[in-house]
Amino acid sequence: MKRIFVASRGDPEHMASLFRTQLPEHEVFTQAPQRGDAPVPYIVVGRPAPGLIASVPGLELVLSLNAGIEHLLASGEVPDHLPIVRLVDDGLADGMSDWVLGHALAWHRNLAFYKDLQAKREWSPQPEKLARERIVAVLGAGALGAQAAGHFVRFGFQTRVWSRSCRQVEGAKSFAGRDGLQAAVAGADILVNLLPLTAETANVVNANVLGALAPGALFINGARGGHVVDGDLIAALDGGGLSSAALDVFRTEPLPADDPLWSHPRVLLSPHVAAPTHARTAVAEMAETIRRYERGEKLPHLVDRALGY
Amino acid sequence: MKRIFVASRGDPEHMASLFRTQLPEHEVFTQAPQRGDAPVPYIVVGRPAPGLIASVPGLELVLSLNAGIEHLLASGEVPDHLPIVRLVDDGLADGMSDWVLGHALAWHRNLAFYKDLQAKREWSPQPEKLARERIVAVLGAGALGAQAAGHFVRFGFQTRVWSRSCRQVEGAKSFAGRDGLQAAVAGADILVNLLPLTAETANVVNANVLGALAPGALFINGARGGHVVDGDLIAALDGGGLSSAALDVFRTEPLPADDPLWSHPRVLLSPHVAAPTHARTAVAEMAETIRRYERGEKLPHLVDRALGY
Repeated sequence: MKRIFVASRGDPEHMASLFRTQLPEHEVFTQAPQRGDAPVPYIVVGRPAPGLIASVPGLELVLSLNAGIEHLLASGEVPDHLPIVRLVDDGLADGMSDWVLGHALAWHRNLAFYKDLQAKREWSPQPEKLARERIVAVLGAGALGAQAAGHFVRFGFQTRVWSRSCRQVEGAKSFAGRDGLQAAVAGADILVNLLPLTAETANVVNANVLGALAPGALFINGARGGHVVDGDLIAALDGGGLSSAALDVFRTEPLPADDPLWSHPRVLLSPHVAAPTHARTAVAEMAETIRRYERGEKLPHLVDRALGY
Repeated sequence: MKRIFVASRGDPEHMASLFRTQLPEHEVFTQAPQRGDAPVPYIVVGRPAPGLIASVPGLELVLSLNAGIEHLLASGEVPDHLPIVRLVDDGLADGMSDWVLGHALAWHRNLAFYKDLQAKREWSPQPEKLARERIVAVLGAGALGAQAAGHFVRFGFQTRVWSRSCRQVEGAKSFAGRDGLQAAVAGADILVNLLPLTAETANVVNANVLGALAPGALFINGARGGHVVDGDLIAALDGGGLSSAALDVFRTEPLPADDPLWSHPRVLLSPHVAAPTHARTAVAEMAETIRRYERGEKLPHLVDRALGY
């Protein structure tokens, strides 16, 4: 009877009960094991307490509760020999798509502008652009980026995708590399960041990239605060290069109360809710990972430490 | 050389020049013909001035600049023997989809709520629902309704479509008839109206329908004001049955300055901009209609006067 330690900080008992339904032959528990306990091959964890992972006997596989695992690598809590699987379940990708497209379409169709008109009781139709007249650049073409890009394509936006591996998304143009980045963002009306955070992608959204967008563009960040040079972002918003930024992630979370982003008139921010982990879809995905592992199959979303994701 | 009279009120010269590119063998003009002029088989018109259509010699086909033509039928300006083709171009359907999904996703992901939190500098993530946990009912499954419903399906919403002909949309459940209407809207979190306005569909969004929705639902109207019993709508908003209504169309347009909808805290309204006519896509569609007519082919979106659309 293989053992699974659910060490999530949210509602571990709920998650454990879902695991028991998915994997009835396994023993699932939520209390940290004691010295001398039977081996525990699997740990389910988001941000582990210091020393927790090292205390688990016989650990074989770390199942992350997040798609982004740069904090796990940076923490040094996971020994180098232990494989880590990122959580990329379909609930996560769906949530991110909803959030990204919600912001993108609301901006594209001037919903905030019409709300202001309504407050003035002003009936004043404006010329409206078609999606096909707008360019969207999506940074990242993993599970999240590819799904969001697919939605943009189906709404008719001219869609470009930039990724390390030049991954193809049907109906979109693919770009890779540093030169490709400038080509991908040149003249874009909407820039969407869904990259993993690695040494390669840190600070990728900087003055060069923001300055290459179409005047009055929208920037949407659903990935990590570390991708963005905040000073460059604020300069682009203040200078009018960007008309708006929708930000769900920040270098420090919760965002400190004195951060200027809170009150910037062109920033819409949310408290890291774009793609929360949904217990049901997350457990279904992690249980499938455990089944694959036990059948000796290749694991999807296994972290490559050299790439950093 | 067949003649086309472009009688649009917007920028008829621009539209005429687009027609000349599409149909170089035709003569295209924008001034009302004089008595005794050569026959003019085609008129392109939105809301014709009284007597205009009757003054055109040899008219064979009325090309409406709108998808909704109930005002043309009600005006009595179009003699019964003259066929009318509604404008259902892909720019129109795309525009409607952008607008509907923009409102739906913004509501689904609580963007207004997080904007209020931001104003209070409050970092307070809330539980977020997945699209698959929400039910959307789309009234109307024509070009506009079917396209919007397809987007809802692809975002993962539980999608229902109600139409006269019980038209199928892949991934959605189809309903028809009065009994089917109550089944389609029962428990729905989002109600979207994209019906044509006919004797059958007038006042369809009333207390019965609104009362059958899930508590706190969203209503989106991109069709016509005449579909909605305004008193029932306001009662549902005030009573909390609806949390929000996104309205682009009204019984009287422009909406009178003293209408209570302007300042209702749960109403987002816009000045009939959800699906404006885009000259380029509209002319491409109408030129194709003329080519089909001249080849003796069946015309799509030909108005059936018995059905009223």
